[in-house]
Amino acid sequence: RPVNEVLFFPCETVCMEHILSPSLQLSCFCPLTHGKKTSMYHLLQHILSASSSLDVCIFAFTNTDLSRAVLALRGRGVAIRVLVEEKNVSICGSQIPVLLGAGICVRFNRTPISMHHKFAVVDGRKLITGSLNWTCTGVHDSNENVIVTEVTELVRPYVRQFARLWLCNDPE
Amino acid sequence: RPVNEVLFFPCETVCMEHILSPSLQLSCFCPLTHGKKTSMYHLLQHILSASSSLDVCIFAFTNTDLSRAVLALRGRGVAIRVLVEEKNVSICGSQIPVLLGAGICVRFNRTPISMHHKFAVVDGRKLITGSLNWTCTGVHDSNENVIVTEVTELVRPYVRQFARLWLCNDPE
Ligand SMILES: [Zn+2]
Ligand SMILES: [Zn+2]
Repeated sequence: RPVNEVLFFPCETVCMEHILSPSLQLSCFCPLTHGKKTSMYHLLQHILSASSSLDVCIFAFTNTDLSRAVLALRGRGVAIRVLVEEKNVSICGSQIPVLLGAGICVRFNRTPISMHHKFAVVDGRKLITGSLNWTCTGVHDSNENVIVTEVTELVRPYVRQFARLWLCNDPE
Repeated sequence: RPVNEVLFFPCETVCMEHILSPSLQLSCFCPLTHGKKTSMYHLLQHILSASSSLDVCIFAFTNTDLSRAVLALRGRGVAIRVLVEEKNVSICGSQIPVLLGAGICVRFNRTPISMHHKFAVVDGRKLITGSLNWTCTGVHDSNENVIVTEVTELVRPYVRQFARLWLCNDPE
């Protein structure tokens, strides 16, 4: 039975250490709430479910929890491609330099048509898409929606769209 | 079999008269391309398919083709509710004054949490959602995605979310 979920934001700030550093288990002693399954918890779990590939096509990427999830996948050998709108590469808190520093393959939308997508495809078969940019404002201070689906009719067009935009923005 | 479609933008500018003024049929003599089934054509057809209700929850609304579609539904007696981010009510080209002038029920997000959604629900059972704001830039100058789905698992949470935000922003 394919995944078909909707997540809404904003989402309260809770401790993500037990998700992002699983070795800590639930023994983190920071002052934040622990173990609460917020929308952000579910979003991170879907991203972390990647076993072979993660393609991210995002207008803005400043959220460090999401960035840590991507880095964790990189550490596990998951093939990662990130396409980002060029004018947002250097915004305050941008995670793009962090991803590049970890050797992740990042391309910038340099076409005259701005790139407003906010989607990711996990293992070529799970789509994460909606109004949510991967920013702190999006996650914690804004009404946002995200669909997570494995329905092939919906996933396949995004896989093709990613391939097209990735090719369009080949720096070579 | 439920609708499950993905539309991508940007979309070239073509004549929308035959969709928005069906009495003209295909006999419009303007210089634009006619009869081409672009993403915008499909989006407008899905909106115009409303027979009883249209609920719109949108960050920014400046696109006149989309506004004309909403006004056409109003003319047919479809119950329309529009929730818009307050800070975008008076932006250049805003269609909100036009909708209000036609007697359409509009509420403004006045909560401290900004409203970044871009979705609509047709007849309580067809969801239109994605990265696309209802603006000219979004439709014609930006890479955007829209999902149109009748899958109940996906539609129902948006129906509830609309009801919640509508109530939160009751001006009474
Ligand atoms: Zn903690
Ligand atoms: Zn024409």
